[in-house]
Amino acid sequence: MINNLLIIGCGLIGSSILRASSKNKIAKNIFVKEKSITNIKKLKKIKSKFKIVENFKNIISDMDLIIIATHLSEYEKIIGSINKKLSHKTILTDVGSSKENNYKIAKKKLKREISWISSHPISGSEVSGPEHGDANLFNDRWCILIKEKKTDKNKLKVLSKFWKKLGSKVVIMDAKKHDIIFSLTSHLPHLIAYNLIQTATEFEKRKRYNLLNFSAGGLRDFSRIAASNEIMWRDIFFSNKKNISQVIDLFIKNLKSFKRNIRANNNKVIIRKLKDAKKVRQKIIKLKQDINKPDFGRN
Amino acid sequence: MINNLLIIGCGLIGSSILRASSKNKIAKNIFVKEKSITNIKKLKKIKSKFKIVENFKNIISDMDLIIIATHLSEYEKIIGSINKKLSHKTILTDVGSSKENNYKIAKKKLKREISWISSHPISGSEVSGPEHGDANLFNDRWCILIKEKKTDKNKLKVLSKFWKKLGSKVVIMDAKKHDIIFSLTSHLPHLIAYNLIQTATEFEKRKRYNLLNFSAGGLRDFSRIAASNEIMWRDIFFSNKKNISQVIDLFIKNLKSFKRNIRANNNKVIIRKLKDAKKVRQKIIKLKQDINKPDFGRN
Repeated sequence: MINNLLIIGCGLIGSSILRASSKNKIAKNIFVKEKSITNIKKLKKIKSKFKIVENFKNIISDMDLIIIATHLSEYEKIIGSINKKLSHKTILTDVGSSKENNYKIAKKKLKREISWISSHPISGSEVSGPEHGDANLFNDRWCILIKEKKTDKNKLKVLSKFWKKLGSKVVIMDAKKHDIIFSLTSHLPHLIAYNLIQTATEFEKRKRYNLLNFSAGGLRDFSRIAASNEIMWRDIFFSNKKNISQVIDLFIKNLKSFKRNIRANNNKVIIRKLKDAKKVRQKIIKLKQDINKPDFGRN
Repeated sequence: MINNLLIIGCGLIGSSILRASSKNKIAKNIFVKEKSITNIKKLKKIKSKFKIVENFKNIISDMDLIIIATHLSEYEKIIGSINKKLSHKTILTDVGSSKENNYKIAKKKLKREISWISSHPISGSEVSGPEHGDANLFNDRWCILIKEKKTDKNKLKVLSKFWKKLGSKVVIMDAKKHDIIFSLTSHLPHLIAYNLIQTATEFEKRKRYNLLNFSAGGLRDFSRIAASNEIMWRDIFFSNKKNISQVIDLFIKNLKSFKRNIRANNNKVIIRKLKDAKKVRQKIIKLKQDINKPDFGRN
């Protein structure tokens, strides 16, 4: 059990950690630092036992675990402001979706002896804010923990135990591998969704047709993904831009080849491509990353 | 009420028309022509009153409404085989997702006096086959009817009434407009989903990482769309290739611009793009093309 836990930034993920830690009695004392007055009002409605702190510098040295659950672009400022008070015993983690860049920031801003061990729980939604938080959000979901050469193994064990108690399945990899994997499994899909919606908007203006009325044939599913929080996604796109650029290029290459093949009525190639994509779906279901239930649209 | 209805090709859509027509007593006699033995076995389990016909040429002249619900690539053969027997009274329609090309086929293959009035009910799923059919599939969904210069207005009225009785909201447009709209709202999203999955597969092989394990962050939603029937989608891509090529180009242009903007840390442009995409989501929900319920992944 963690003695003192501080969650900095308490939106969807932060408040889910709060609820799950309280529900499963994983932390004795839970402290929350949240800068948004709107969010503080929402947090006060949560029935879990925790304390909202205003000036958090006084308590930093007593914390066993500090979780930064803000947007990526706030890390530098936060780490700078708590750095001097951090004690050797504290595990400092975050929940961000991009990792290499954070390690650079941590290296630059953190006292040498402090353990920065980054976490990435794979859970989220197109909605944000503490009112959507859920004590079961991490149940049976992956949580990636980042292990670099200098990572303190004992502290990694403690952090791993913490996430497992929240319900997560923990997997360990380095920041570089993490950022490569998620550039494709998460960052590119979101970027594509945003750009498809933008393309639809432009096309609608140009043709003066009411496209959105007929979005049930595919477009609307992308619009849900494209409704995710814009600050969060700007930060991810900026901080993992090198890997993301590479997968954009690979994707464009495939799109162009597909276009050539449909223009040439290239039956064999197109059927193979479409069949192969279907097989991937079966793999994803086998891996329990989705369920095998047909979707006819949500009513 | 339709006296004699013939459904040619009885998969997801055909069997849904069958179930809905029977349930709502829209057709007195329902005939089904289905070439797949597997599908015929499945059809026999449906409790609606209908007759499976083997050699359908004998009954063609008595039909009031014939609905072709096969893959697009079978139209030419089917029209050719029923053409001689078709009577003046018959309304001939289909449910395909691409229209201009069909009109060319109909013009080439059909007797002059026969009314070819194309339909496109906007409903479907990643699954296919008669066992997934549903009498309520068309409830409150759009159905596009195609009106060209020579379309018989009385027959268009009859067909419109038929779809409304199945639960559809009917909207009328010409084939050209239909194909432009759906190239963006449906064909491009599916093509993108297929290509994203292909890109993931290539990337997985190249990097030797288990990407699919972490597909819950976005990729898995695309994999569902990419699991749709490959013959259906090959036919759509081939028959609407001109419009689809244009929207692919527009989409690639936007992707490249987005890439340049994230590489340049262009905060203002990226935030505007992401915010605009979010607004489109709100419009789609207002238009009742999706519901406003957060999605945390399906369990």
